[in-house]
Amino acid sequence: MSLLEQASRARSLRRLFEPQSIAIVGATEGFDKAGGRVLTSLLDNEFKGAIHPVNPNRPTVKGLRAYSSLEAISGPVDLAIVCLAAGDVEAQVELACRLDVGSLVVLASGFAELDARGAAAQKRIGDLARRHGVALLGPNCLGLMNGTLGMMASPTVTMRGYRLLAGKMGFVSQSGAIATFWMDRMLGLGLGCSKWVTTGNEADVTVSDALQCLVEDDDTEIIGMYVEGLRESDVLRRAFSTAIERRKPIIVLRSGRSRAGAQAAVSHTGVLAGEDGLYTELFEQFGVCQVNSLSEMVDVSRVFLTQRPRPGKRACIISLSGGAGALMADAAEFAHFELPPLPEQLVVQLRQFFPDYVQLANPIDLTTQIIVDRRLFERTLDCVMKSGQFDTILTFMAGRTPELLSDVGAAMMKLLPQWQGNSAAIWQATTPEFVAGLEAAGILVFDEIPEAVSAMARAVKIADRWERPSPDAAIFGASAGEVRTLTEQASKIYLNSRGVLHFPEGVLVQTAAGTADALAGFDGPWVAKLQSARLTHKSGQGGIELNLTSVDAVRDCVARMLESARQRQLDCEGVLIERMERIQWEFIVGLRRDPVLGAYLLVGRGGVWVEVDPDVTQAFLPLSAERIEVLLRRLRGFALFEGYRGGAKVPLARLAQSIAILCRFFIEHENVAEIEINPLAVCRDERIVAIDASVYRYEHEPEPALAAGGG
Amino acid sequence: MSLLEQASRARSLRRLFEPQSIAIVGATEGFDKAGGRVLTSLLDNEFKGAIHPVNPNRPTVKGLRAYSSLEAISGPVDLAIVCLAAGDVEAQVELACRLDVGSLVVLASGFAELDARGAAAQKRIGDLARRHGVALLGPNCLGLMNGTLGMMASPTVTMRGYRLLAGKMGFVSQSGAIATFWMDRMLGLGLGCSKWVTTGNEADVTVSDALQCLVEDDDTEIIGMYVEGLRESDVLRRAFSTAIERRKPIIVLRSGRSRAGAQAAVSHTGVLAGEDGLYTELFEQFGVCQVNSLSEMVDVSRVFLTQRPRPGKRACIISLSGGAGALMADAAEFAHFELPPLPEQLVVQLRQFFPDYVQLANPIDLTTQIIVDRRLFERTLDCVMKSGQFDTILTFMAGRTPELLSDVGAAMMKLLPQWQGNSAAIWQATTPEFVAGLEAAGILVFDEIPEAVSAMARAVKIADRWERPSPDAAIFGASAGEVRTLTEQASKIYLNSRGVLHFPEGVLVQTAAGTADALAGFDGPWVAKLQSARLTHKSGQGGIELNLTSVDAVRDCVARMLESARQRQLDCEGVLIERMERIQWEFIVGLRRDPVLGAYLLVGRGGVWVEVDPDVTQAFLPLSAERIEVLLRRLRGFALFEGYRGGAKVPLARLAQSIAILCRFFIEHENVAEIEINPLAVCRDERIVAIDASVYRYEHEPEPALAAGGG
Repeated sequence: MSLLEQASRARSLRRLFEPQSIAIVGATEGFDKAGGRVLTSLLDNEFKGAIHPVNPNRPTVKGLRAYSSLEAISGPVDLAIVCLAAGDVEAQVELACRLDVGSLVVLASGFAELDARGAAAQKRIGDLARRHGVALLGPNCLGLMNGTLGMMASPTVTMRGYRLLAGKMGFVSQSGAIATFWMDRMLGLGLGCSKWVTTGNEADVTVSDALQCLVEDDDTEIIGMYVEGLRESDVLRRAFSTAIERRKPIIVLRSGRSRAGAQAAVSHTGVLAGEDGLYTELFEQFGVCQVNSLSEMVDVSRVFLTQRPRPGKRACIISLSGGAGALMADAAEFAHFELPPLPEQLVVQLRQFFPDYVQLANPIDLTTQIIVDRRLFERTLDCVMKSGQFDTILTFMAGRTPELLSDVGAAMMKLLPQWQGNSAAIWQATTPEFVAGLEAAGILVFDEIPEAVSAMARAVKIADRWERPSPDAAIFGASAGEVRTLTEQASKIYLNSRGVLHFPEGVLVQTAAGTADALAGFDGPWVAKLQSARLTHKSGQGGIELNLTSVDAVRDCVARMLESARQRQLDCEGVLIERMERIQWEFIVGLRRDPVLGAYLLVGRGGVWVEVDPDVTQAFLPLSAERIEVLLRRLRGFALFEGYRGGAKVPLARLAQSIAILCRFFIEHENVAEIEINPLAVCRDERIVAIDASVYRYEHEPEPALAAGGG
Repeated sequence: MSLLEQASRARSLRRLFEPQSIAIVGATEGFDKAGGRVLTSLLDNEFKGAIHPVNPNRPTVKGLRAYSSLEAISGPVDLAIVCLAAGDVEAQVELACRLDVGSLVVLASGFAELDARGAAAQKRIGDLARRHGVALLGPNCLGLMNGTLGMMASPTVTMRGYRLLAGKMGFVSQSGAIATFWMDRMLGLGLGCSKWVTTGNEADVTVSDALQCLVEDDDTEIIGMYVEGLRESDVLRRAFSTAIERRKPIIVLRSGRSRAGAQAAVSHTGVLAGEDGLYTELFEQFGVCQVNSLSEMVDVSRVFLTQRPRPGKRACIISLSGGAGALMADAAEFAHFELPPLPEQLVVQLRQFFPDYVQLANPIDLTTQIIVDRRLFERTLDCVMKSGQFDTILTFMAGRTPELLSDVGAAMMKLLPQWQGNSAAIWQATTPEFVAGLEAAGILVFDEIPEAVSAMARAVKIADRWERPSPDAAIFGASAGEVRTLTEQASKIYLNSRGVLHFPEGVLVQTAAGTADALAGFDGPWVAKLQSARLTHKSGQGGIELNLTSVDAVRDCVARMLESARQRQLDCEGVLIERMERIQWEFIVGLRRDPVLGAYLLVGRGGVWVEVDPDVTQAFLPLSAERIEVLLRRLRGFALFEGYRGGAKVPLARLAQSIAILCRFFIEHENVAEIEINPLAVCRDERIVAIDASVYRYEHEPEPALAAGGG
């Protein structure tokens, strides 16, 4: 997109989100049709701009002057909402583009989700809009809302009777229904929204575009997002990056996580890297918070609506009940909070208010002393806040006696707003009125322990991520063309000839008779491996023999393998004879290109473990050697590599360096679809050797020359 | 306990839970003292029995005749609630026992939780009560309630103003506070309770005793439980068993799970078997459902309050929204439901109501067709119910339009009560009145997806457990005396002499000079292992050398090890020389005695993995070879043992048999505190050999004779 086009699109998106004038094409009087519902919702919410109903059959609609067509409207139209049936949409889009309408919303279903004809029509209106620089939302969507402008430009029936409220949180969604359920929850809690967008079939504006707009929107401080699948991730990544810079938390609910795993492209070790894992990695990379439900999303956003979370894991628990304190400690530990012991000075201070027999620890149990001393909670909270030793204070209180509510409630309202750290107050068995009072005073109140602790932990994790800069842009490679699998020997020659990785000394033998000559001057013990692109698991299929110690043994083995290949009609290049390495550790290293999310590295414990009990981790490219070291340290069994029980240590920096070189190679060679090294071995003499390798290349590139020479 | 004592105790517990007459010792007029609160709560809830206030200073209390002392009451007293301060309790307990009062509740705190003096007093009142066969609840508890009798025999202030309701669920708790929070939740939902018991310091009646009473109680169909720690588990296990027989679900909230892990006794591999894991195993064994919060408990119990869950994992999802359907599919898969494809016949039936372009799959997406066809939901639900292919139906609906509520709501109310399977209806963005109407009709309604699916999955798991009989009683061993660690050699001789397990051929050498003689007629290669009870990790401390191939090498090694032991002042028995085995697989086998939960087996992948990346499982004894095989199959990396990629297979039955023999030995030898075999190896020749062994014995038993002979 040219700079001019970019500017024009940005202007159009702005007119979409913040229109001064809206035309409703197909506006009707009642609530039974979409055009009537949109008009009613705009009027009921007192939209602060001009509304132009378009209806050729009526002079007025709902008391407003009706226009016979978009063309009849004098003055600019920032947004035209097309409320007609699918068949009538295209003509209106054409007209709007011709008339220089600012932006478009198409509500009708019956496009790509219906059939091929609908898909073609959808493509046409999308192309048209893009060509004219007109942002088009939909089709098959529920429109958008702007809480600040009182603009409910949506035909949703779910929201009927609700009054749109302005708020600091925005929501972008690929599902109209889910978006209304979110709004229902927020309005039910008395919380409003800044912008609310449903992208439907995404003929033009995608959920990532919408996200980018919200990240840049001054009214929006917190963003919720519902995603089913993405077509591209570069806009998304750019939005995530901007969100980090602007300290705007993004909370994502993603569906299809389980089915996505099942549908994930199955390569020979495809079981490892389900799409879900990649999405999770993407979200981790940008500190995007993934939740399992709308209520979890609301919980996390409530933290940001009441406070500016600060990073740090040190939590202090103050509890009315020992049992609840223990439950909170469990929840805190499960959510990776630390519960440091109370510092000595704090214990000394607290001891003034607590009798000697009360053990002062973290959690702080207020015990029955709270009945004796009505100011105990306030004194305790004050001391904890002033101790400077905690990032988060979690309190548990319960009850509805007037004394309790006034003493503890007043203390919370007095002290917590002064506290620079994070805090959540769990209240059980109390009155809704009391909770409402606390919330009105800006206190974050929850009803249940795990929910509160988990929301706070997620918020702290987001804040923690803000301390570091955005990651580099992702790498997308050409993904056109059929993929061709190179044999092990061809893969090794290909990589070796480019100076990437070291391989065992080896020679390709094509006849049993040629074995002795091939092995001249090449000491054993040897390994023999049948070379066929169709043989994916050599070890399970008689395609590999280890520890051959005489030339005769190698020759016999070659004869056996070639004969077996002949009988099985395997397309075979010969038998690769390699010196057997003395392996100390095995790793798997994979490099792949996800068409949506970008190129990534997968690294983990190698050998059979990869399939039997995977211990792998993955991250998007580009990756420095330092970052790869961090990835290796993430492995579950990392302790094994660290000189466990006085054993040898993996030369971590060198290993990471080797992998980093491979990553760079992969980035620079877009014609390589995938590389898998399993195992990449660290030998007893500390050499790092790729014992097996598979390269997958796009067909359109000329094949590398195959040679029978050593590796 | 004699049969007579048992009968007397059962009678006393019955009088505690279902008293016809209650004396309140320390009854007062107001609500500020415990005695006043108990009296008020009994009166407000119209307790259906006699109430006798005891107060020497007043002729009447709250309009009831007051007695000067327990002694002054004519007629039987089933339950005396002692509402006096700690110092006055003992005299009243003595008096009550003398007067043949049926049972006792002691509310006061200031006993074992306060100091040693309080602990002694607590022991005295507990002993006294037991001696007289009088069940005593408390001290430091919040009493008990009986919803059927309207008996709120509790000084809780949290419940003030609430009216106790009769219900099918009972609750037993070690924390009074948590019990009131539970009750608050239930009453808030309009749900009542059968019995409610808080056990406090448990001078006599434990939480397990109370559980047993509820399991046997005809009014109680579902049981909730809050536990912090147990003193014994035999009563608990008996209660769990009875609950299986009587098909009563038990739902447990346990605290201290994280700290318990930290506090767990640390043996050299103690890191593996945190207490929490043992509790989880215990709950698994009996199908007891463990939850993380009271709200989760309420969710699961609501399933049982509305239906009789049947086992089976096949779920069908019907959803108003595609997005919500996808979220439900995710939640269902995460909760281990299966979502089988719709059977062909069902698709044919549904196709009558759905247009051709709607893909019919599971989840069933009702699409916008539900607007076209007002009976679509009813027709779909009817077909799914009649298909006979599903155990559970999960529906997602949303909205508050009158048509939707009447069409879908009426269909649910008409059809679901006829359905023999499980069902949960998730409704979002609707009205509380509508939900209340559905619930009044017996429909199980949830507001959020993961919560609904998880509650249903937990209920199905309980129902599934009911299909199998209770496990055998646990094994408790003597746990008195100091524990003595035997060296490897001593451990092996001890086990070998009793015919348990096979060991490598070996000989103990005490001087380097004696090495050659000792090895006469004993072929290598050998392994040398320094024998010292203080050397726990031989491999990390130069205590082991592998693959010694000459007598000289062995001698040198022996010299080195003995010298090193001398320098380190290790108490050493010599060096064990064993034939080096060719190991194919390694397992860890541990046998331990948890003083509270009983003896158990821990089995898993052996060698370094045990500490680096544990893959272990555990189960309580006794265990048959068949059950041990099941345990082995549970291991994460089990595929490795099953002839993975054409490799060798673990002789599973023989391995399980060997472990079963060891288990039996452990059961029969209570003087053995712990056994650990790591690794128990399966050799390449399929022999099963204990490569290393540690036996821990209680000191009071005479030592086994030590011999320098072969293993």
